Amino acid sequence: MFPQHIIARKRDGHALSREEIAAFVRGATDGSWADYQLSALLMAIFLRGMSAEETAHYTDAMMRSGVVADLSAVPGIKVDKHSTGGVGDKISIPLAPMVVACGVPVPMISGRGLGHSGGTLDKLESIPGFRTDLPLEAYRAQVARIGCALIGQTRDLAPADKKLYALRDVTATVECIPLICGSILAKKLAEGIDALVLDVKFGRGAFMKTLPEARQLAEALVSVGRAGGKQVRAVLTAMEEPLGRAVGNALEVAESVACLRGEGPADVMEVTLVLGAHMLVLGGVARDEREAREKLERVVRDGSALRKLREIVAAQGGDPAVIDDPDRLPQARQKLVVRADTGGVVQAVDAMEVALAALRLGAGRVRAEDRIDPAVGVGALVKVGETVRAGDVLAVVHANDAAAGAEAGAQVRAAIRLGADPATPVPLVAGVI
Amino acid sequence: MFPQHIIARKRDGHALSREEIAAFVRGATDGSWADYQLSALLMAIFLRGMSAEETAHYTDAMMRSGVVADLSAVPGIKVDKHSTGGVGDKISIPLAPMVVACGVPVPMISGRGLGHSGGTLDKLESIPGFRTDLPLEAYRAQVARIGCALIGQTRDLAPADKKLYALRDVTATVECIPLICGSILAKKLAEGIDALVLDVKFGRGAFMKTLPEARQLAEALVSVGRAGGKQVRAVLTAMEEPLGRAVGNALEVAESVACLRGEGPADVMEVTLVLGAHMLVLGGVARDEREAREKLERVVRDGSALRKLREIVAAQGGDPAVIDDPDRLPQARQKLVVRADTGGVVQAVDAMEVALAALRLGAGRVRAEDRIDPAVGVGALVKVGETVRAGDVLAVVHANDAAAGAEAGAQVRAAIRLGADPATPVPLVAGVI
Repeated sequence: MFPQHIIARKRDGHALSREEIAAFVRGATDGSWADYQLSALLMAIFLRGMSAEETAHYTDAMMRSGVVADLSAVPGIKVDKHSTGGVGDKISIPLAPMVVACGVPVPMISGRGLGHSGGTLDKLESIPGFRTDLPLEAYRAQVARIGCALIGQTRDLAPADKKLYALRDVTATVECIPLICGSILAKKLAEGIDALVLDVKFGRGAFMKTLPEARQLAEALVSVGRAGGKQVRAVLTAMEEPLGRAVGNALEVAESVACLRGEGPADVMEVTLVLGAHMLVLGGVARDEREAREKLERVVRDGSALRKLREIVAAQGGDPAVIDDPDRLPQARQKLVVRADTGGVVQAVDAMEVALAALRLGAGRVRAEDRIDPAVGVGALVKVGETVRAGDVLAVVHANDAAAGAEAGAQVRAAIRLGADPATPVPLVAGVI
Repeated sequence: MFPQHIIARKRDGHALSREEIAAFVRGATDGSWADYQLSALLMAIFLRGMSAEETAHYTDAMMRSGVVADLSAVPGIKVDKHSTGGVGDKISIPLAPMVVACGVPVPMISGRGLGHSGGTLDKLESIPGFRTDLPLEAYRAQVARIGCALIGQTRDLAPADKKLYALRDVTATVECIPLICGSILAKKLAEGIDALVLDVKFGRGAFMKTLPEARQLAEALVSVGRAGGKQVRAVLTAMEEPLGRAVGNALEVAESVACLRGEGPADVMEVTLVLGAHMLVLGGVARDEREAREKLERVVRDGSALRKLREIVAAQGGDPAVIDDPDRLPQARQKLVVRADTGGVVQAVDAMEVALAALRLGAGRVRAEDRIDPAVGVGALVKVGETVRAGDVLAVVHANDAAAGAEAGAQVRAAIRLGADPATPVPLVAGVI
């Protein structure tokens, strides 16, 4: 099978066979296809599409391009969560310990931030000493011992995805549902999970800008995940204003800890409870979401979820004292308070603008090779519907560079729209698939 | 302008601007675009198309990617011919000297054979000593001195085309009319010509299998060529059976010489006269095709066209004695006569099968880097409509390898269909655009 023959078949609108897709993915993994052949086929797939069956074959081939973790020795139904990415989306950090504290193992392999979107790994690494680069064997042992490990993608997991994602990024072939499905699910299925809850976000701060687009992606993800033999549910959640009141790595860890103390922002708690409830039901420890939610609230109230986070942090080399004293997290040198010049009701907080302000401060990456500053970001953000008076705090910019801080402050101020009318936030959960 | 932004615009179906197309072609020439970006855009162009305006910009940018020969010091309207490629298509070799002998300069830069299609350069190089790798300065001087030079593409002519053609070949993006137009015309316009006659072939042995496809390509070529400021005509010609009775490099040179002696096969002469007549009219030395045809017949009759070929051969280092004694051309060791086992009328001679038989003998290239054998091929072919008796010669296979010769003989025999009914060849000329 010459690469150009397989490319020509997709170019002409045919469905590729399992063998043709396997040859393509193998070509990406072992270098037997040239990069220009991979990218020509990626563009043909972008424009011609792939059927559900082709996408399932693609995902399977990507998963098998590397090691598939075997967690069968760990008792229980292993459940993970994946988010398509948002602003202030620290949900994994309170969620994983809550679910584990309810008795469901959570093997979680997360990503890094790129562009406006943050990454769980970056947030966790703001905890002094915390290591996310555990080898697969240590990951498996930790899941077996304490029910959870929060690590980054290793080189041996789905290497074809790493190769193809890098190519897609520079050839305008990212925004393609079958390719997105394959990329997300190949990594997740290689983790050794039994079930998966997907948080598919829509809105200003999300990858999918509208609910119909998000629903299309969610349906494809669920269908392909199920074709891969896993239990999969997708929750559609709004991403218009940032989740919570903090955007930035250490700031979000502190907010996550607050959640586990029962002192978190209402929206972060709500999304965590909704996703966690589905995980508990899939994990077989709750009959329905209502019972699941009660269990999740209980492990926050009784402190067991917070203890579980402390245990995870300690197991991965992090300083557990941070959990009791978030001031031990990296602190920025400057705190610029952004104040309201007039009173009013918060009509909107533009998640994308706040994300770009945080990026400017150094909280994220413009390019994959950029280093991030764990201390900086935007905290104490007002939420849509809140009433402020002139002089009230709208946000606090945490900066290590005065010029970037001033620019970010102006950008955050512009992102917050005040008005006279009452305002209510977009409902957080728009549907479950 | 990031490559991925330009790729995304074409991917989304927009027309690219002159500047965007120039950036793409420059990227191919200077390496500032990665090969995987070039191939992603080529696939997007394949699937989304390019307008006549985009194709004209593309052709212009490709032409300007290297040196554009300046033949303005050569008096007269310089006219070239280009064929989209066929089997036994040696037309350039009798045509160029005939047209030059009528007073029109013919600066001709030709290609090599690949796959089933032969190349004028390979045919000419079967003449001992003939050099096709003249530098541009020598080319210009020779056109000025004797009205014609028959050379190969130099590295400095349209280098972007060389790069992009190589990529298209391995990424299934060859069969795309705007890209084909750009590739053909960029090279031809860079030659320094004023006018161009295109021989666009259709049928079994052609790149375009049907007349409507050939017409579409011809219309695009004429429109883009005219946008480039040149006089352009396209003739649609049939390519069902091989042109003439010979397929193979030295065999075709011998047949070309026979044409210039007035002893050539009727179909080769007819196509040569039709194309030549348009060249003479565009070249301003005949009022109409009828007058042009008479002039062309005259230079064959009076021997001046043959003398011109001898002059060209000598000027390019070839042995002019070959023109008077074609037996001095390379000869194959074996001549296998293919005979009719029954009598009948020749219903069809499958050009593609004959071409593949010649390829098997070593007359062509499977890959661009293959060496060809000038001596081998298929000669003495019967033509559609001829009547044969059992035992008559259908073809002679010229081979340097006994096994390949036997296989080629069987293939040629299978390519020739005999029947009881009278048969007439497909009309050679199907239209002029």
